[in-house]
Order: sequence, then structure tokens, then C-alpha cells
Amino acid sequence: MNIFELKTDLDSSQVGHEMYALMEELYPLCRSITGNGVRESLALVQRHIPLEIHEVPSGTKVFDWTVPNEWNIRDAYIKNSKGEKIIDFQKSNLHVVSYSIPVHKKLSLRELTKHLHTLPGRPDWVPYRTSYYVENWGFCLSHTQFLGLQDDEYEVCIDSRLEEGHLTYGEYYLKGKLNDEVLITSNICHPSLCNDTLSSVVLLTFLAKHLRSLGLRYSYRFLFTPATIGPITWLCLNEARVSNIKHALSAACVGDPGKSTYKKSRRGDAEIDRAVSHVLKHSGKDYEVWDFVPYGYDERQFSSPGFNVAMGSLMRTPDSLSVEHHTSADNLELVQPEYLADSFSKYLQVIAVLEGNTKYLNKNPKCEPQLGKRGIYRALGGPHVRNGELAMFWVLNLSDGEHALLDIAEKSGLSLDLIKDAADILSAHDLLQECGREQHRRAVSCDGG
Amino acid sequence: MNIFELKTDLDSSQVGHEMYALMEELYPLCRSITGNGVRESLALVQRHIPLEIHEVPSGTKVFDWTVPNEWNIRDAYIKNSKGEKIIDFQKSNLHVVSYSIPVHKKLSLRELTKHLHTLPGRPDWVPYRTSYYVENWGFCLSHTQFLGLQDDEYEVCIDSRLEEGHLTYGEYYLKGKLNDEVLITSNICHPSLCNDTLSSVVLLTFLAKHLRSLGLRYSYRFLFTPATIGPITWLCLNEARVSNIKHALSAACVGDPGKSTYKKSRRGDAEIDRAVSHVLKHSGKDYEVWDFVPYGYDERQFSSPGFNVAMGSLMRTPDSLSVEHHTSADNLELVQPEYLADSFSKYLQVIAVLEGNTKYLNKNPKCEPQLGKRGIYRALGGPHVRNGELAMFWVLNLSDGEHALLDIAEKSGLSLDLIKDAADILSAHDLLQECGREQHRRAVSCDGG
Amino acid sequence: MNIFELKTDLDSSQVGHEMYALMEELYPLCRSITGNGVRESLALVQRHIPLEIHEVPSGTKVFDWTVPNEWNIRDAYIKNSKGEKIIDFQKSNLHVVSYSIPVHKKLSLRELTKHLHTLPGRPDWVPYRTSYYVENWGFCLSHTQFLGLQDDEYEVCIDSRLEEGHLTYGEYYLKGKLNDEVLITSNICHPSLCNDTLSSVVLLTFLAKHLRSLGLRYSYRFLFTPATIGPITWLCLNEARVSNIKHALSAACVGDPGKSTYKKSRRGDAEIDRAVSHVLKHSGKDYEVWDFVPYGYDERQFSSPGFNVAMGSLMRTPDSLSVEHHTSADNLELVQPEYLADSFSKYLQVIAVLEGNTKYLNKNPKCEPQLGKRGIYRALGGPHVRNGELAMFWVLNLSDGEHALLDIAEKSGLSLDLIKDAADILSAHDLLQECGREQHRRAVSCDGG
Repeated sequence: MNIFELKTDLDSSQVGHEMYALMEELYPLCRSITGNGVRESLALVQRHIPLEIHEVPSGTKVFDWTVPNEWNIRDAYIKNSKGEKIIDFQKSNLHVVSYSIPVHKKLSLRELTKHLHTLPGRPDWVPYRTSYYVENWGFCLSHTQFLGLQDDEYEVCIDSRLEEGHLTYGEYYLKGKLNDEVLITSNICHPSLCNDTLSSVVLLTFLAKHLRSLGLRYSYRFLFTPATIGPITWLCLNEARVSNIKHALSAACVGDPGKSTYKKSRRGDAEIDRAVSHVLKHSGKDYEVWDFVPYGYDERQFSSPGFNVAMGSLMRTPDSLSVEHHTSADNLELVQPEYLADSFSKYLQVIAVLEGNTKYLNKNPKCEPQLGKRGIYRALGGPHVRNGELAMFWVLNLSDGEHALLDIAEKSGLSLDLIKDAADILSAHDLLQECGREQHRRAVSCDGG
Repeated sequence: MNIFELKTDLDSSQVGHEMYALMEELYPLCRSITGNGVRESLALVQRHIPLEIHEVPSGTKVFDWTVPNEWNIRDAYIKNSKGEKIIDFQKSNLHVVSYSIPVHKKLSLRELTKHLHTLPGRPDWVPYRTSYYVENWGFCLSHTQFLGLQDDEYEVCIDSRLEEGHLTYGEYYLKGKLNDEVLITSNICHPSLCNDTLSSVVLLTFLAKHLRSLGLRYSYRFLFTPATIGPITWLCLNEARVSNIKHALSAACVGDPGKSTYKKSRRGDAEIDRAVSHVLKHSGKDYEVWDFVPYGYDERQFSSPGFNVAMGSLMRTPDSLSVEHHTSADNLELVQPEYLADSFSKYLQVIAVLEGNTKYLNKNPKCEPQLGKRGIYRALGGPHVRNGELAMFWVLNLSDGEHALLDIAEKSGLSLDLIKDAADILSAHDLLQECGREQHRRAVSCDGG
Repeated sequence: MNIFELKTDLDSSQVGHEMYALMEELYPLCRSITGNGVRESLALVQRHIPLEIHEVPSGTKVFDWTVPNEWNIRDAYIKNSKGEKIIDFQKSNLHVVSYSIPVHKKLSLRELTKHLHTLPGRPDWVPYRTSYYVENWGFCLSHTQFLGLQDDEYEVCIDSRLEEGHLTYGEYYLKGKLNDEVLITSNICHPSLCNDTLSSVVLLTFLAKHLRSLGLRYSYRFLFTPATIGPITWLCLNEARVSNIKHALSAACVGDPGKSTYKKSRRGDAEIDRAVSHVLKHSGKDYEVWDFVPYGYDERQFSSPGFNVAMGSLMRTPDSLSVEHHTSADNLELVQPEYLADSFSKYLQVIAVLEGNTKYLNKNPKCEPQLGKRGIYRALGGPHVRNGELAMFWVLNLSDGEHALLDIAEKSGLSLDLIKDAADILSAHDLLQECGREQHRRAVSCDGG
């Protein structure tokens, strides 16, 4: 089955709506870096792909870190002296600082204010705040509501538990012909925030679901983990597997209307960097490519000098440029099916590039072969060459054992699709030999040129 | 004899008119990839240079190709039912599709139309068409004339022969001090088309004629062959000589008013690429440099991965940008003596760069030598250095065994002429030693720095 | 003592005035490439730093050159027939061509004119001219004055001596922890010319004076020599020391109002080139960086292929762009304390970069270390990372044994100050280990990564 054909057959608009529907289901759940919100979220994903769920006990040492206690929350509110709930966790899980310790007491506005978080510059939005590794508690609310608070005695209640338990993450491994892996990761720790990062949760789910039906060259691994402690835990428990990862993408912020933005891997010129750049360049849409920065999502851990995995990050509007980032405005209105579909399509094209980027040898390296007598060149000499013919000339010219198809696409300025088609036609006419493929029971090595 | 001096002595305007005169003689002959038109053309060239003529039998296997049957044509026409010749080969050899098989019959306009070729977008021009490797026949005419054709019975006659014979090509080898070769090629298969490629036929003729009188470092080879099958045949018969070719140019489209355009070799940074770029940069005229594309003229064969000869193509308006390309508008009006002369001058300058690009060693590498006491530096300290003095400082500074003169010219931004003059002055004062030249019966190696 | 802190403590404005005051003292002295003017100038410098004075006898062979005779002058003038001094050396030492041989005779205006130098394009300025290596004599005057000269008999007198003596130069060596040296040079041969090069004489004096109080990693060498013959003499007498010079700057033209201009070393990508570029890029002011040219100041000799010392030149307006260059307009008005202070500050920052550009190893290379538990990361997760935290992430990410701090600063776009601060914090928390530093009596090698 040819991934190149498949990706065009696919109705990605339909997939966009399916992704959005799953996101709507995930949206209300209160996720954090541990706890039942994560478990329930992974269960929803499992309805689409046979996700493996891992539970790692609190206190487990993972490199310089320790898996924290598990956090769960039932309810939280602030009541004024009349007993009116002025902040209610049931209305939005963003109202509680994630990992807040249990609290139930009365206090003055002045004391309460020390535990309140607002966004003065965006007075109608509720910020998202966390305090994972320092014990604390707090509430988030709109600045407008905050300004309306009277001098009063308030009752605050956070009915949470922070106790020994587990860190939960999901993993899906899809075996291909090679043990070499493509790794794609998403965080799953954010509560009611759509673009960051529910959009990537649903992207990975539907990518994995779609790839299952294909016979792929690479093996694929999809990780759904909490931020920072998640990839650290996975890396610590799977250190021996890291060398299998040949190409990696950290997914996040893939559902907003902004243009696609790719942040390169630490290596800067890895095959994944060139594959994504190629797809974006030929997408016909505006895009940006950024150099690596040791900050962001899972690439922070996978790109540490001890691992140096070639992991890029393919987003739409990066968090650092998004005004909605980590606020209540990152909601079901910001993310739309058409943008999810576009991201899905680009990820699939990147995978197609990785799958298709193999090396061939010109079996007839001295002068051009006579394409005409094989019926693959127009018979009547006209004034100009066509793109498909040019692609054949490029493939023949550069299939010298040093250039893979993506190299040829880059040098020619033609799309890999066209280059791959040319290679297929030439192979069918026995003018080209794929490197590494057995032929007549003898493997062809391309290193000798 | 110094090629640097010679090229400035030369009246290239005079040469331009001589080239044009030869082109006028060549223009009416009906050339194709084989046949008597090629023989007659080469005979005209032989009046200027002692060209060697090669005849390769039809059916000879040359790599993936076979030398085709020889094609010759005596006459061709289309008559209407009144017996009037409405298309007459005698008026223009472009009227017949090259390699048309013999035909003589009557047919309706509808049947005839299947064999007619026109240019609807340029209704007054006659296109040039060929069918070398698929047996067929056809006529080319202006679209205006085509639109005027009545429903009638037409008599078509092509009095051609396509039978065993030979492929004919011309070769001129000029021995220099070294066995290392500079190869310059032109196609000779096009009939009445001036820029593509009679312009390069006359360019090569007069370049060769001019170089004969000089004592050159490199050996020079000039090839006049039919397109595609010509260079393939030569490469097949001369495979052992290919490694001698150090620099190569494929010449075509050198007589039109457009700016000079250089298409780089497959290597992209070969010495020929740098030499041509240097000449164009210092020409004081507009120009373009293009990256390699595995299409075009003889570079298609010489740049195949099994040979990878460093062959660039120095043109004026490339065929792909020329509206006149492969039409009757590529005629004696399009090409003019002044443009031929300018191309001639640039080719000669490229040759001068290749001839002059040798490496020297500073015999006094610690600090500057005292130029003043040798009388080659102004005695009285003024405010600013002059270009000639700066050239001497550059040559002294970079003649460290790693930089040849063209490297020094590129780094300094000065012309190779100025750099070469500086090297000559410094050598004359024993401050510089040319690498590889015997001195006091001991060869100087520059590799040790 | 930390050079990074020191340079900000310093009141460079105060230093600018001290430099200017020394320049005022130096201005009237008649310096040349040899003679008492140089000795008196070096004596003024010695009041600030313990300069070592070297005297090299006339006739000493130094590579291709010979130390010339020593030149001294007491007086010079031109009188008209009325006995009026129309040109008087006592008013400006620029009036006499430097190294003029003794002369005392009467001659006509026509004969005199052969020995007069003016600047027709700048009619009020007096040019500066020399004739070191060809025996000659001459006067310089304004073109306006020249045009006013009557047909008359003139008495010319140059009371100079050109006889065996010495070439004098000053040297100051400041030992640091390493034998590796930073070399900074200035010419001291120009008479009453401020920017070229008294500005660099006073710059070197106060740089050396300031660095004396610091405990430096590198050793520093300051050279005050006459142009051309000075560095040639030093190089010839100190050839064995050249390999110790790791970074070098040739100082000149550092006191005018123009923007800073850096001319790169011959290597083009040496650490000194990157250090200066970094300082200028982060200076917040306009600047230019030029490629190397084998002309200029002491870099002409230090960059000769036999030495190839990594010597750049950090100037303000380069001589080649300065209209005042080598004229009486290069005076105490052109150079101002604030520009001297700015140059001083930039040189000091370059030294700080060189001192601080060491390599560290991330002791925790797998995943990020947990900065929060060490109190060096904000506890409460907010929306965006801060620059100081980003600097820590960059240092951790790139301290892999291949990147020194300047590499990290360049890759991150952050200033070396910020990167160095981050490295200090991380080192203090035992997360980083400086390469080459002993720890627990075991040297850490960083080559193994």
C-alpha cells in the first residue's frame, strides 16, 4: 500500500471534524500532570487506538527528578459572606491552580488576594496557573471579576488530594518493516485548554489510527504524557530504545488559524528538519521555520545533550506568540476542524516524505538512457521539457549513491511526490535500483557509488 | 606568447564579422543529426581549422543507444488540387519535420492536418520539429498559412531517404604543454536556426582558429556533433580520454542580444564555474549565473553520474527563455556580429583565466618584503594605497601553497588580470615562485606550504 | 577578581578624559620611525605603566629589511628674500617631510616647488608626508599658502641628522595564569596626528594600566612601535614567542566620532573575530565588520603567511574612509574624550569575552535537571520563560564538550554576560563543570564529551 497515494485519497476535512469531536469530549476533563483526569482522557483516546497505559509510582527517581505525588480534585469554590459561590471549579477547571493542596478556611480579601491570579491586560480571560513542585494553593479568575470583589470575609474550599499514587501516560507503538522509529509526542496534562495541547492529543490519535492501515517502512511510536516529568520518565524507563528513534516530532498548538511554524531540531539539518521544510515549502501556504531553542515542549528533554534526538516541533501559532496561550481563551472557538485537518494533512505528508526518502542507483550511469524507446518520453521533439520528464532526468543524474530522493527534490526544486513518481517509473523500466533492496537474492549496496 | 596580452590586442569586432559571414554560409544547409548537411557544414568549418571528420556506422551500439540510420532529403512540398506548391522545402528547410520518412500521396485536408505543425501563439513563425527515433513524417508552417488552407485534396511529397549510413561529427584537438584538456562543444544538427546552434558552431571555429597561434598550457578539444546521440557516441568511443578533461563548456545560443547567462556544472563549484563567474563579474555588463539542471545541451551526457565532467554552459539568452527558440525567428536577424564578438571575447577571457590560474609560493613568507628597495613601490608615503600595490600585497599574503591566483582574485575582489600582473612583477623580482615549475633543475612542490 | 564586574564598575568617562590629557601631552612631540620624539613619547607612557624600552641598532637585519639610520630634527623653515619665515617647523612638525635629509640653500620658487606638498582638494589643511627609505627632503603646507607664494628666492633650512643610532620601541608584558597571550599593538611613529595614531597609544596605555589590577587568565602584551619596520623588528627578534599569541588586535583610529569598524583577521573566523563581533553586535550602537585586507597597520606583518597570527583591527573610522587622515585636520578637535572612552570600553569588553570564553560540561546531560528544587527557577508556572532562565537552558543544552560560552551566546543570540551569569549559577549548584579546571585533584577533560 502506497502512503503517497493514500494521503491524497483521504478526506482530511472529515478527519478534521472527527478530531474536533474527540476534543469536545476531552475538553471538560480536569487533567494535570497526574491523576484521574489523565486516565479518563487516555480512555477516550483508547476508543480510537489500542493505547498502552503506563502507571509509574510516585517517588520513582527519574534522572534528576522524582515522580510527584498524584493530584486529584473533587470540587473547589470561593464563597462570599452571603454564601454565594463567586468562583466555582465546576464551571471551569481553570479556576483552580493545578496541584493546589487542600484548603478550607475563611479569610479576608487582603489575605485571599495573595492566592488570586488574573490577567490585567486581558480583563475578561481567566489565566491557567500551576504549582506542581512547590506546595501551594490558589485560584484564577478574570481581572474584571477581581476588581468587583468587595472587602468581605471569604470562604475558600479546595477539595483536593495530593498523595502517593501514580504518574499515568499513554503509548502506542506501531511496528513497521524497520526497527528504526519515528516518534511523535504530545502533552496530555493541560485541563480545559484546546490548542495547547488537546489539539495535539487528537492529532496523534487520528494520525496513529490512520497509519495503522498502512504497511510502513518505519516503526512509529506515539506518546501522550504530562509535560516535562512525562518525557523525563519515559526516557529514564526506555533509555535503551532511544537509539532507535531516527526522526521525532513534538506536537502542540496544531488547531488555531495561524500559519504553520516549524521549530528545527537541535541538529538543525536533520532529515526531519528537511522533511518538514520540504512539505511546508510545497504546501502553497505561508509558513515559518525557526531555529532550535532549548525550550518548548518535549524537545526540551529529548534534545538534552545526553540524548540529542532529532526532534523538531511542528505547530501552528507557537505558544510564545499566542495571546490566548494558557488562558481561558484557548478554547473550542479558537481551535477549528479545518485547522486540525490542515495540520493532520501536513503531518501525514511529513511521514510520506520520511517513508519515501530512499536512495536509488542509476543502473545506466554513463550518458542518459534512451527514454523514448521505452515509451516514457514524448516521441516528437517539441520546444520545452515537461516537469515529469525533468524529474526523471534529475533522478537519473543524482542517483549516484550519494543522493536520496529528498536530496534530489531539494536540488531540483521539484516536489518529492514528482521525484518519487519519476523514480517509480524508472524503476519499473529497470533503469533504477533501490538501494538496500534485495534483487535476485543479492543485496545492493549503494555506498560504492 | 602571453594569452593575457593577446586577448586585448585582438579586434574582436573584426572576428564578430568573420563569424557572422561563416554563419551566413552555413544557414541555408539542411542539417540533421546525420546526413550530408552535416558533412557540408563541417567542410565549411574545415576551411578555417584542420577539423578531423569522424564517420560512425548506423547500428553502432553506444551505451544505451544505437546510432540511427542516416537521413537525407532532396525535396519536399505540398501542392493543392490546382498543382500549386503551397509548402516548399526549397524555400525553408524548417518546413519538413526532420527525419521525416519518404511519402508521396494525396489526402484530404483533415488527414493532412494530422501531419502539420504550427505555432498558434506566433502565427507568422514556422516551428522546428523533429522525429528522430520514431518513424513519422510531417510539415511545419505558419499558423496564418494554416488557417487559410481550403478543404481540398492535397498532394504531399517528401523525397527523403532513411537508410544505413553514418553519423558524422567533427573534432579538433590542439595540443598544449599539459595532457589535461579543456573541452568546448557545440551541436551541429540544427538546420536553418542561427542562435541555436549555428552561433556556437562559428564561435568554436574562431576560438580554435585563434588559439592555434598561442603556446597554451592546457590542451584544447573542440567537438561539433549532433545533439544527444553525438556526445553519447563520442563518450562511448573515447571513454579513456574523459579523465583528461579538467574543464568543459557546452556552447549554444551565443549570438543574440540578451545578457550572458552561465549555467554551472553539476559540481557547482568547479574551477570552470569560478572562472566563468569571475569573467562575467568583471565584464562590466549584466549577467546571470544559474545552478546546474540536468537538461540542456551536451552537459546532459557529460554530466551523467558515470562521467561527472565539470561542464558548464555559457550562453546568452538560454533556450528556455527565448521566444524565438526552435522557430523560423531564430534567423540571421536575431544573431548579430556584435553579440558573437562579445561571446567570443568572454570565452577567450575564460580561457585566459584557466590558463593563468596557477599557484605561487611567497619566497619571503615572514613579514612583507621591502618592495620599495626593489623599485616596485612608490617611494614617497602618500595617503592611500593603489590597486596594483594592493594586488601585490594580496598575492604575497595568500601565496602560501593553498591559494591559486583565482582564489586570490576572488578573495581580494580584484580582477585576475591585476592579480596575474602582480604575480608576474613579484616573480620577476624573485619574491615569488610558481609551483610546479622547474627552477635550477629542481621542481618546486607547493603542497608543503 | 571578576573582569565582568570590573568593566561595569569602571567610570569610562573619567578614563576618556585621562586618555585625552595624555594625548595632549604627546601631541606636540615630533615622532618618526626612529629618534628622540619616540623616546620622549614612550617616557610619557612610562609615567602610567612600567614600559620596557628596546633600542635596536641601525643596520640590524630584520627579515627582508634593515633597521634604518636614526633621524632627528632640531629646526626647519623656509624664508623669503625678506628673511620672513613663511614655513616654520616650530609651529607644526607636519611642515617637514619626515626623514628629510639636512639641507640649507637658496633656490627659486620653481625649484622649491618640486619639494613642496599640498592638498589642492583641502586648501586649508597641511598634508603629512614621509620619505623613510629614499633619501629626500621636502616641506608640507596648505594649498592656500602655496598659491600665495611669489616668484622669489627662498632660503630653505632643515636642521636634521640622519645617522647611525637606534630604532626605539616600547613593550609591556602582563603575566596571566596562562602563557597563552593576547597581543595589542599601536604605532607610535606619527607626529602631530591624533586619531592616527596617538588615540591608540593612549588607549593601550590605559588598557594596560587598568588590566594590571586584575587577575587574568591570559597573559597580555602591549607593543608601541613605529609602523612597518617596528612590527617586523619585533617579529624578527621574538620569533619564538609568536606561537604563544592566541588573539591579537591592531589598534588605530580609535578616537574620532565615527562608528566602530572591525577588520577581521586573515583567518576570518578566529576567536578574536567572533569576540569583537559579539561585543559590537550587543553594543546597541551602529558598527561595521569588514573582511580582511592585507593592508592597514601591524596586521600587515603579523598576518603574513609565515606567521598568520589571528590579528584583527578594531577602529572607529578607518583611515581609508577618513578625509582627515594624514593631514593637519587629524588634530585635538577631531578626537574627543567620549570617543576614546567608548573605544576603551569596547576593547575591555572584548577582553572580557576572551577571558570568559571557557567551556563547561553539563554534569547531568540526560534531560533537564530540576532547577526548581534548587531555587533557581520560578516556582509558579507562568506563561513565558525569562531571559535568565533561557540562558540556563542554553548553557545546559550546549555544554556538551563541543561548545564554549561564546558559541552558546552566538547560537542563542543572548549576550555573553547573560550566558556567563547562567554558567556561574549552574556551576554554583554543581550542575556544570568548567573544562580544564582541577576538581578533587583530577583534571576534567572535555574532549570526551
